[in-house]
Formats: sequence, C-alpha cells, structure tokens
Amino acid sequence: MIEITGKSHVAGHWLEPGGAAFRSFNPYTGESMYGFASCGEGEIEAAVDAANRAFQVYRNFGGEAIGLFLNTIADEIEALGDQLLEVCDSETGLGSVRLTGERGRTCGQLRAFADLVIKSEWVQASIDTAIPDRAPVPKPDLRRMLKGVGPVAVFGASNFPFAFSTTGGDTASALAAGNPVIVKGHPAHPATSELVAHAIASAVSKCSMPEGVFSLLQGVGNDLGANLVRHPLLQAVGFTGSEAGGRALMDIASARPRPIPVYAEMGSINPLFVGPKTLESQAKSIAEGLSGSVCMGTGQFCTSPGLAVSIASAAFETALKASLSKAPRGYLLNPGIAASLRNGLQRLSAHPGLEWLNEAAFEDGSMKPPNAVFKTSARTFLADESLSEEVFGPVTIYVVCDNEAQILEVAEQLDGNLTASVHADDDPQLAADLYSVLEQKVGRVIYNGYPTGVEVCPSQQHGGPYPASSLSTFTSVGADAIVRFARFVAYQDTPDKLLPDALKNANPLGIYRLVNGELTKAGIQTLRT
Amino acid sequence: MIEITGKSHVAGHWLEPGGAAFRSFNPYTGESMYGFASCGEGEIEAAVDAANRAFQVYRNFGGEAIGLFLNTIADEIEALGDQLLEVCDSETGLGSVRLTGERGRTCGQLRAFADLVIKSEWVQASIDTAIPDRAPVPKPDLRRMLKGVGPVAVFGASNFPFAFSTTGGDTASALAAGNPVIVKGHPAHPATSELVAHAIASAVSKCSMPEGVFSLLQGVGNDLGANLVRHPLLQAVGFTGSEAGGRALMDIASARPRPIPVYAEMGSINPLFVGPKTLESQAKSIAEGLSGSVCMGTGQFCTSPGLAVSIASAAFETALKASLSKAPRGYLLNPGIAASLRNGLQRLSAHPGLEWLNEAAFEDGSMKPPNAVFKTSARTFLADESLSEEVFGPVTIYVVCDNEAQILEVAEQLDGNLTASVHADDDPQLAADLYSVLEQKVGRVIYNGYPTGVEVCPSQQHGGPYPASSLSTFTSVGADAIVRFARFVAYQDTPDKLLPDALKNANPLGIYRLVNGELTKAGIQTLRT
Repeated sequence: MIEITGKSHVAGHWLEPGGAAFRSFNPYTGESMYGFASCGEGEIEAAVDAANRAFQVYRNFGGEAIGLFLNTIADEIEALGDQLLEVCDSETGLGSVRLTGERGRTCGQLRAFADLVIKSEWVQASIDTAIPDRAPVPKPDLRRMLKGVGPVAVFGASNFPFAFSTTGGDTASALAAGNPVIVKGHPAHPATSELVAHAIASAVSKCSMPEGVFSLLQGVGNDLGANLVRHPLLQAVGFTGSEAGGRALMDIASARPRPIPVYAEMGSINPLFVGPKTLESQAKSIAEGLSGSVCMGTGQFCTSPGLAVSIASAAFETALKASLSKAPRGYLLNPGIAASLRNGLQRLSAHPGLEWLNEAAFEDGSMKPPNAVFKTSARTFLADESLSEEVFGPVTIYVVCDNEAQILEVAEQLDGNLTASVHADDDPQLAADLYSVLEQKVGRVIYNGYPTGVEVCPSQQHGGPYPASSLSTFTSVGADAIVRFARFVAYQDTPDKLLPDALKNANPLGIYRLVNGELTKAGIQTLRT
Repeated sequence: MIEITGKSHVAGHWLEPGGAAFRSFNPYTGESMYGFASCGEGEIEAAVDAANRAFQVYRNFGGEAIGLFLNTIADEIEALGDQLLEVCDSETGLGSVRLTGERGRTCGQLRAFADLVIKSEWVQASIDTAIPDRAPVPKPDLRRMLKGVGPVAVFGASNFPFAFSTTGGDTASALAAGNPVIVKGHPAHPATSELVAHAIASAVSKCSMPEGVFSLLQGVGNDLGANLVRHPLLQAVGFTGSEAGGRALMDIASARPRPIPVYAEMGSINPLFVGPKTLESQAKSIAEGLSGSVCMGTGQFCTSPGLAVSIASAAFETALKASLSKAPRGYLLNPGIAASLRNGLQRLSAHPGLEWLNEAAFEDGSMKPPNAVFKTSARTFLADESLSEEVFGPVTIYVVCDNEAQILEVAEQLDGNLTASVHADDDPQLAADLYSVLEQKVGRVIYNGYPTGVEVCPSQQHGGPYPASSLSTFTSVGADAIVRFARFVAYQDTPDKLLPDALKNANPLGIYRLVNGELTKAGIQTLRT
C-alpha cells in the first residue's frame, strides 16, 4: 500500500506546496477525504524548467526507449492493484466496474501509443530527392518529419479520473511525441492522481528517464492552471472539461506574447435524431437505448446525449419515461457538479416551454440525481439558444417536431458538437439529408447507435467544431491525438549523419516513407553521404 | 486586354464599393496607378453569405470536378498573357523575369493541388471494421476522413502578388479542400488582383461552379480585414505578412464568440550559421551566396537571411561588403515598405553596438534601397532583443562570435523562425550541435545553402514556431497546406450509401486507405450494405 501524502510531484521530487488547502470528497458518504495543498509559482517554475531541460534529452530518445517507458507506466499502474480502484472510487463514486474498465482503457491507450512510437511511422516521414540539374534552378533534397514541441501542460478531467487525467490520452500522446508533461491534477481526485504519479515516477526510475519528464501539480482555484499556461517555456496545452474552463485557458494562451495552442475538448449536447417512420416502428427499443446512454456514468460523459429530436410519439415518450425512471440513480462526482446540475434542472423546469416528463426530487445535499427527461416543441427549442447549452448529468430533452423539415431545421441550427446520432432505417431520404447537415456540425456521426462509448482506434474522431473543441482539426482520442503535440521540421540538403533516423538514406527504422510522392520502405540512393 | 475597372468581385458580380478610395503605385516612376474603392460591411456580408451557400454545393463536388476547376484557373491565368505581367510589374516593380517565374509557380501550385484532389488520397481515409462479438462490448465500425471546413478568408501578401495573393497557395489549398474563398486583396497591387479575379471568374463560369465559391474584396485600412475575420460564418483564415498584421488577425479570431484558426505566416530573420573552420576555407563563396540571397527580390522575402552568425573574419567581411555593394539595387514594392525600411536602417545605424559596414544613402523618396550589412558582437546581439526583429528589405547583420560556444548561444536564444542555414563542412561537431538546437527553433534547417527559394513539394515545411507562424504544426507551402482548411469527420456504423465515396466499402475512388491499421487499396467485406 502506498501512503497518500498530499504532496505534489515535481520532476522526481515529492514536495509539500504552501498554497490553499483542499480535500477530496466521498460521494457515497459525503465525508471529506484526503487533504492536499495547492502548488504555486515556485512549483510551476521548477516543473516547467525541469521539463524544458529534460526535453533536451528526452526528445532524442528513439521510439524503442519511449515505447518501453509508456509500457512500463501501464505496468506500474496495474501494479497499484486494488488500492488505485478503491481510492479512486472513494473520490469519484464511479464504482469498481466502471473504474476497472477505465483503468484497462487507460493502460490500453498507453500501450497503443507505445506500439505507435516503436513502429515510428507516426512521424509521417517524407523525402523529396534532389534534382541537381533541373532548370532553371536545381531542386534541393528535402526531408520532413514530425518532432515533439517541448513541455506540455495537461489538465486532468473530473469525469475520467484515469483515461483523461494524470496519465490519460493527453499525457500518453504528449509523452509519446517526445515531450515532457506537467499535469495540473483535478482537485476532485487528488489521491488518485498521487497514486498514478507514483506509477509514473517508478517508470521514470526503471527506464532511466530524466526526472523532469513528468510533474504533477495539485491545487484548487484557477490561478495555478492560468499561471502554468502563461509560462513562457510551455509549448502546448491539453484540456478536457467545461466550455468555460477551456475557453479561459484558450484566452490566456492566445494573449501570451508567444501564443501556444490549447487543445481543449469541451461541451457537447450530442443530439440524437430519429426519423418519423423509424420512431413508429422502433419507439421502445430506441427509448431504451437512449435511456441507457443518458444514465451511463450518471450522465457525466462529454458524449452524453442531451437532445432527442423527432416527431411526437406517445409510445416513445412513455418508454423513455419508464426506462429512465426504472434506471437506478447513480452518484455524481462531486458537490460542484451536483450544484451545477441542480441549477440546470431548476432552469429547465422553470422554463415555460418545457415539461419535465418524469419530475422527481433532487434533494439538497444528495449526490444521486434523478434521470431526467424534458419535453419541448421544436419551435420553443429553435427560439431559445440557452436550450442548446450542455446540462452536465443524466438529462435529456425530447424535442418534438411537426415534420421532417423541422427535424432538419433543428439540425441546421446546431452549434458544434462532438457527436450526432441518426436512427432512420425507415426514413432513408431524411437520413441522407441529416448526414449532409450533421457532418458539418460534429466530429462523429453515428448510425443506429448512441454516443457514449468512445472506441479508441485510428479512425476515431473525438473533437468537433467549437464549442465541442478548440481546434476541430484534431482528435483527442485515437492514434492521431499524438499530432497535437508535434510539429513538422524539414531538412534541406542535409548530410545523412545529421538527419534523424527516420529520414536517413538507408531507412534504418524500416518504416514507410513518402519518397517522391510514393509510399515505400525502400532506402534512398544518393551521392551525398 | 481586360479593362481595369477598380471594382471588387463579389460572388460572380463586379461591384463598385463605396468605401475609401486608394490607388496603386508604380515603384519605377513614383506615379499613382489604378484607382480603387474599399469594400465595407455590405460586401463582406454578401461575399460570406454567398460563400456559405456555395459551400453546400461545392463541398460535395468530387476531386475530379474541383481538380478541373483548379486546372482551369491556372489555364485562365496563363491566358491573361503579358497584360498580367505588365500590370503586376507596374504595381510591384518586381520585374518580368521574377514575375514570369512566380506566375509559373502559382499555376504549378494550382495544378499540383488539382492532382492532389483528383487523386483523393489527401483526405487520409481510415477504416476500422466492426467486431460485433467483441467482449465486453462490440467494436463499432468507424471510418474517418478530412472534409472542408467552410468559407475561408485569404489575405493577399504584397511581396508575392501571384504566389501568396489572390490565387496563391492559401486560395489554392482552401479551394482544393472544398471550401469557398473570400480574398482580401492587398492594396498595393489591386489591378493585379482584379485581373486574377477575372481568370477565376472565367473558370467558375466554364466549370459551372457556384458563384459564391470566390470573391475578391479590395480595400485599404484595417477595418475590412478585421470585419471579415469577425464574420460568424467564416471558418478559417490564411494570412502571409507582417507579425503585427498577423497577430492582429489572430487576436480578433481568438476573441470571436466562436474562435476560428488563423494560419498566419509572419516575420522571420532566417539566421545563417557558419562554422569557424568552414568560414576560413569558404569565406568568399559563402559571402557571395549570402549576398545573393539577401538581395533576391530586394530582400522582400519571408525567408530573406537577416542574420549571419560566425567568428570574426576579415576575408568574409570584405567579400560580403564587396558582393552587396556590387549587387545592383532593386526596387521596393511600395512606399510603406520603403518608409519602414528607412526606419529600420536608421534604428540599426543609430545603435551604438552596430557598425554599418557598407553605409550608403537611401534618399528620401527613393524606392531603391542600399543592400546593407551591419556588424555587431555576439555580446551586443544577445543583450538586445530588438536586434532579432525582422527588418524587411535587403539587410543582414553579421554577428561576430568569440568561439563556437558563443555561436551556439546565439542559436539557443533565437525566437521562432521559418528557416536556419548551417555551413559547417569543416566543423562537424558544431554542425551536429547547431542542428540539435535549430530544429527546435525553425521549420526548415538548410545545409550549405541559403534560405530564399522555397521548393514546392510534399516534404517542404514553410512555417516555424511563433512569430514565424501562428500554428507551427502546419505548412503554408506544399501539399500538406491543404490540411489547414479541413477537419476530420468520423462515421460510426454508417450504411455504405450514406458514406462519402472515399469511405465506401468498394473503395470506388481506388485510393490508399488505412484499413485496420494497414495501408491498402482493397475494398471492405461487410454484411452491412
């Protein structure tokens, strides 16, 4: 068993910071849990400075060394055993089944990025060979690849204490690209973060990595994160959380003397569209599927479906109410989320155009909210932008349209979203029309499915137009997440011995490279050595 | 011959805007040239609105149709014949040889992007097939590709009236990705822009493109560009120009309710490093090469080498002075650049730590500046950040270092740059040390060469850390420039008939796709149809 000390981990050292004290909270019991203190300027400076020094070494480690490091982190997380699950459950109320699954996903992500960097093809190596006798000017030899950018700040998310937190996808992809990482731990699960930091520290030691490659700064309040993002040596930021939080970091990063990118994955209402004929034939099964997705993780997923858009259907309404009311209430993560959900439910129930179909009490002090469905007309929804704002928790709004045209109108008015789902087996023309609109609004369009459950694979796109994400070109899940923390460097007419291995003539890494426009593993014949 | 009307081109219509009048300027004669008026809110609204409507059609054109459109634009530009070169020369003073070459490059870029979209592989299609019986949950079918983002604003640059202007690389890559483009023409060459807009309008008509796919808004002052970037339907911005101009647009775009990316390619001093032993053996040839690069285009290139870093060498100094003084003076583009260069030369010559080695008059009113080289010590350079600021024009600073360590210190203190050049055949260890530092500072490291002349090919990287570029992951030259104006969309469990061609089972486009992690042109076998 590892003792939870309340310390922060700064470049290999466990420090007791002097900032504001805070405690984590047990959603099951309402008890205060582990005590921590907040990091300040001193810890930021020490962590980023060490990260920058570590970068000079770490950036030159090859794929094998970094891959071993990532695999070792995964092993060390598993070696924490049940303590990690128990501590995390006591800080999040997410339950051991979910947390076991999330730990598996987290270690799976680390190992997937390990495979990716060992394979070394993620660098997108490209070579255009010289044509010395080209007229009117010779063509130079140009070679290009992705390289890590330098120290990266990662903000842990409350709702994924493993998979989007201390060593979640942002940390894994940033480390994989050759960058040191400074994690700003989420204050809702600091003991969980401390345990995971132990696993990383152990991997740093076993793999002889420079200590500055990882730091965990614990803290409450906004100053710590804001000042971290302002640090001049920081090169990029990964964030998962609320629109307000992400936008604040974007604004800080844009206002720096030298702006840096913030890859923020923020709010989303993940609308689900059901065609009229399809609703007729599948009212019950779609209602049950939707209910399951709404309740999953007590609705605390960025992909939770907050909107169901179709025509009027008593069967659907009845089945949805029944499913949601039958589903057991889950626990919310922390009192802040509970307060915010209570406000959201009050706002919706006070709205004259909305009806709370399964109204139920959410007692003050309770961490177990009702699974709620509201009903409104498309007219009301289209007239009030505030109804498109995310209500974080197990809540969905059934938007009743008069006809197909109005369903499309709702789709057209949508803001950026992570996902949209379409159920329209019996409405083929509407399906095509919806796809045409929705692919402009979201990162992932789902057919006959529900948005929760984000598969980790190369074809995943977790990121949509603002406010779903800050930079919608990129994904925060899947192999391509690594690109966020790298940039291309080109080498012109450079002798072989000065080139990175990925670009050397002989192709010592044996990777696919784009050579004069064609993908090949073949080496390059040149006169230059 | 096409009559220059002074009008702007808004979605197929030639309009006479009512804003501030301005004229272009002949650098050879000092005469006022063609008269124009500035666009305002009305033209912005009309252009972006038409672009957004055109996007709904244009985004669904396949690679063949868009490729034909781009090739036709190139043909129509060539069909403008000598009139285009003559009008442009009279507005820029760049000379017919350079302009003929730049026109060739511009048409070459258009045709290269045409080839790219006809080939259709730029969309990075990726498919992960379903595993319905996977435990504990089935794996869905996921497919992902790049799609255009919507209306793009492109800001023409003064120094490349063809290649980074009305239909330069930004416009070509944005159109290629399936986006309508609104060009804010540079007020220094409005007649050139008008002629090029004729070529595009003709291609729009011949290829039956929606008229909103292209607009050219002429104007002086900052409001037009600022308001264009603020338009809520605009999705991305391409800019080439000064750091002040690019940063202003970045700030506006970040402050929008829904921020959008600005791909700005801005200032750069493009340092050139020469090893001590190499300087000894090649003083004269490097001085001559550097001089040629400094004078090229009258120093008005973003890749102009503004810094030469080495040890003291009388031979190098003499040869550099001689080459620069012998080189004929060129013409500057416009009075604004002349005024700014005059200020820059005054600032450098007034600096107590700098010596103007070949001091020469730059008479008031003249458009032909001296080709200038200043000398300073590394100590002075390292102590004064202002010496790292770009002076746009044929100016370079020779930074004299005491030893190799000081050469490296200068490299380490550099801000972001587009390029750095290394001449170190006889200094192999210094070359390796410099490469290790410089690849963190620049987008392109050049060996035994000079930075001017940016080869257009897939391995080119034209973009470096801020302030060289706003988002250094991306390049504004080469095939990958297209990625800036696209974002990934994923399709989950989607029936074949609803998928874009690039992702359909049968692979009707015959492109390479990443299928379950392996690149292949093979089709997909599934039960779903």
